[in-house]
Amino acid sequence: MAVDLNSNVGESFGVWRRGDDPAMLRIVSSANVACGFHGGDPATLRSACTAAVAHRVTIGAQVSYPDLAGFGRRFLDITGSDLRDAVLYQLGALDAFAQVAGSEVDYVKPHGALYHAAIDNITHAEAIVAAAVEYDPSLAILGHPDSELLKAAERAGLEAIPEAYVDRAYQPDGRLVPRSEPGAQIADPGEAAARAVRLALNGEVVTTDGELITVRARSLCVRGETAEAVAVASAVRQALEGEGVGLYAFCG
Amino acid sequence: MAVDLNSNVGESFGVWRRGDDPAMLRIVSSANVACGFHGGDPATLRSACTAAVAHRVTIGAQVSYPDLAGFGRRFLDITGSDLRDAVLYQLGALDAFAQVAGSEVDYVKPHGALYHAAIDNITHAEAIVAAAVEYDPSLAILGHPDSELLKAAERAGLEAIPEAYVDRAYQPDGRLVPRSEPGAQIADPGEAAARAVRLALNGEVVTTDGELITVRARSLCVRGETAEAVAVASAVRQALEGEGVGLYAFCG
Amino acid sequence: MAVDLNSNVGESFGVWRRGDDPAMLRIVSSANVACGFHGGDPATLRSACTAAVAHRVTIGAQVSYPDLAGFGRRFLDITGSDLRDAVLYQLGALDAFAQVAGSEVDYVKPHGALYHAAIDNITHAEAIVAAAVEYDPSLAILGHPDSELLKAAERAGLEAIPEAYVDRAYQPDGRLVPRSEPGAQIADPGEAAARAVRLALNGEVVTTDGELITVRARSLCVRGETAEAVAVASAVRQALEGEGVGLYAFCG
Amino acid sequence: MAVDLNSNVGESFGVWRRGDDPAMLRIVSSANVACGFHGGDPATLRSACTAAVAHRVTIGAQVSYPDLAGFGRRFLDITGSDLRDAVLYQLGALDAFAQVAGSEVDYVKPHGALYHAAIDNITHAEAIVAAAVEYDPSLAILGHPDSELLKAAERAGLEAIPEAYVDRAYQPDGRLVPRSEPGAQIADPGEAAARAVRLALNGEVVTTDGELITVRARSLCVRGETAEAVAVASAVRQALEGEGVGLYAFCG
Repeated sequence: MAVDLNSNVGESFGVWRRGDDPAMLRIVSSANVACGFHGGDPATLRSACTAAVAHRVTIGAQVSYPDLAGFGRRFLDITGSDLRDAVLYQLGALDAFAQVAGSEVDYVKPHGALYHAAIDNITHAEAIVAAAVEYDPSLAILGHPDSELLKAAERAGLEAIPEAYVDRAYQPDGRLVPRSEPGAQIADPGEAAARAVRLALNGEVVTTDGELITVRARSLCVRGETAEAVAVASAVRQALEGEGVGLYAFCG
Repeated sequence: MAVDLNSNVGESFGVWRRGDDPAMLRIVSSANVACGFHGGDPATLRSACTAAVAHRVTIGAQVSYPDLAGFGRRFLDITGSDLRDAVLYQLGALDAFAQVAGSEVDYVKPHGALYHAAIDNITHAEAIVAAAVEYDPSLAILGHPDSELLKAAERAGLEAIPEAYVDRAYQPDGRLVPRSEPGAQIADPGEAAARAVRLALNGEVVTTDGELITVRARSLCVRGETAEAVAVASAVRQALEGEGVGLYAFCG
Repeated sequence: MAVDLNSNVGESFGVWRRGDDPAMLRIVSSANVACGFHGGDPATLRSACTAAVAHRVTIGAQVSYPDLAGFGRRFLDITGSDLRDAVLYQLGALDAFAQVAGSEVDYVKPHGALYHAAIDNITHAEAIVAAAVEYDPSLAILGHPDSELLKAAERAGLEAIPEAYVDRAYQPDGRLVPRSEPGAQIADPGEAAARAVRLALNGEVVTTDGELITVRARSLCVRGETAEAVAVASAVRQALEGEGVGLYAFCG
Repeated sequence: MAVDLNSNVGESFGVWRRGDDPAMLRIVSSANVACGFHGGDPATLRSACTAAVAHRVTIGAQVSYPDLAGFGRRFLDITGSDLRDAVLYQLGALDAFAQVAGSEVDYVKPHGALYHAAIDNITHAEAIVAAAVEYDPSLAILGHPDSELLKAAERAGLEAIPEAYVDRAYQPDGRLVPRSEPGAQIADPGEAAARAVRLALNGEVVTTDGELITVRARSLCVRGETAEAVAVASAVRQALEGEGVGLYAFCG
């Protein structure tokens, strides 16, 4: 029994640091590396890819709307073709660093507002997939279960990987509680670890209503940037391994 | 007898158009495509690469300092490692579009202030070459004759291609008259064509002093963005072919 | 009888030119000057303000979502407080140039996607007005008739100025035909002039359905960036004056 | 006996935090607020100005080259007129927030590479002063003693305020040890406090050579962004007050 554990890295920009990439890359199996559009300057992309390769972590492109000031967390009503081109640009840029580090980009995961848009917005979902297909049809797509993104990936013949969040609260409808609401994030390592085990073993998560819902996930996501992120990720990995659930990347 | 003819394309940004890429790509043999750091958004990169492939024009990466507001024409005192990473980022981004269009990036030419810096500034010259070597050691480097850039390329085992400008005035020391000075640019198609022929056949150009100097060039550059650019480029090509000088890309 | 005639200026950025500001500023009575967030670099703001003052044209701040790559034409789901602060930043920046030129910013008009959002989106409408009230309660707000923007301006005690477009097609519901649709723009100077006269004298415009609708406007807008913009604006002004309708700024 | 104590604030950008502005603003008498060109988004400018006013701290505009990715720490070879306009833009933008908070911008201090350039580079020094004179001739200029910046300020009739750094090492020539060199920064609160007292009482600082040099300063600068910044600033203020040196802003 095994599952993938993914997290965001490479989100520093210039003098501004964000997250502890080296520590996280010792824990996770897949790294969603920022590509410069919401965070991540070229030097950060290099160090993130180099560290990922050193720890045998699979590299994914965490593509975003072009919105550094908003960290990609604001919906942008960009056309499908402009979004496709923006994703392709990010894919190529990151892949240069991945290749120079001795690896390659193996999957695509949209970031922030684009992640949430791609659940329902077919145009944006298809734009992400179109760029991936053009660039490398062996790329996998990592996203929300049952999202338009994963449906578009399947239609295009790409591997579609559903994921669950171990440290984000779920609404009864299976969506994440928006980051702006209280209780959206689970900071307690023990609670996150317990949720991770339940997700891995039973494909279940307790919603804000107290109800159990099914979340089929081939990858579990832990946040990378908070003060407690490394402690949470460590606890999650330890708990999974304690239950006999090994970590392995879904691709790469 | 043959020579390469190169020009800048892909320098539009958003609503702002610059140059007539489709017309220029029917004339030149090599296209220096902007990569987004001084001009060129993702959609522009796509259309420039697609048109280059349609006209069998070799694609080069016109890499720049990160300075959209200054169009890359202002020296930036960036560290060598940050510049290397900025160049690698641009190379990867453009190559994605080149590959999707059915080609690839075959050479690197620095733009604007970086072009001029790389004549003397060893750190910046070596940073450009370092990124090229890392990314693809079969990349050629296009630059000013006898520049530190071409020397660094040779030391690194890359093909170094010296170029001459057919529509820019030369100082007696073999450098270009700065763009800000009167007479820096030659707008008359006939004069540019005559200079092109002389450069191709004799490796000579008349400087602002009226003296003849030797400029060894394997590629001739014509500007791409001015009102008269297409007329100049057409006249140059016609004059060269009239003298039996064929156009062919130095690589690709 | 008199009306205001407004147009966008100051939208160049770096090497990229847009519109013929000096020519337009000889024709209009109010200038919507870009503030750097969708177009307009500091040097452009200076020259636009200087020319506006030279021609006794009232200066307005054409505020935008922060989106240079999209020219402010893409809706951005920014929070009300971030939008208010973005508008305040733009107001202050432009006002510096207006004051140095010997004038001041007298009104605010949202640009592009923000203009259209502010018709219905109360949060964004109120954010624009909040920044204006904070900065200078004597600022007027220029916008679409019956929009949430103008309602918010009135609630806040600001002068609310409804405007009509002389060279854009109207839908039967009184909205502009989206720029992306065929027939959205009226390029013929004579047709634009006739519409301007009808708007000024009767407050009427013919929609795409062929029906007459009422558009109460205290200002008429002519586009500033197209090839035919100056000819259209000239024809409009001449026709208005020929009918005895003088041009005067609604404020300033 | 009294001296001014200044520090940088408002340098956060989007999700990226930098420094503890509220804590620093309880300690210093003058705040160099970033204006968005090297750090500081509109919301950050607002909160910095609001907190400065709450703590009766004078607001200065910390103007920079346009270089967010490099945090304004890289020399940019911008023309004098473009720099003047960039400074004016920043001044106006920040002043909007200062005024809305109930204060105003009272002085200008260049940031990072612009600070160092303005020691020797007359063009850049004069550009900063030109913008200040245009905007408000009652603005003071804060800078390095004997710099071209302060000379230009004096020529223009502006108040020129020389400053010294309490937590940066000095070279024998009176310049700061570059940030990239070891020992450039003094992290020990006690050592910084002792240097501050010596600077305030005797106008002296010990250089890296161990020699005493004279540094005439009307303001002392403490860094604002490091982990130890608040402890250093507190120790400096306490030590100054213990020696009977009161803190007061040089203007405002």
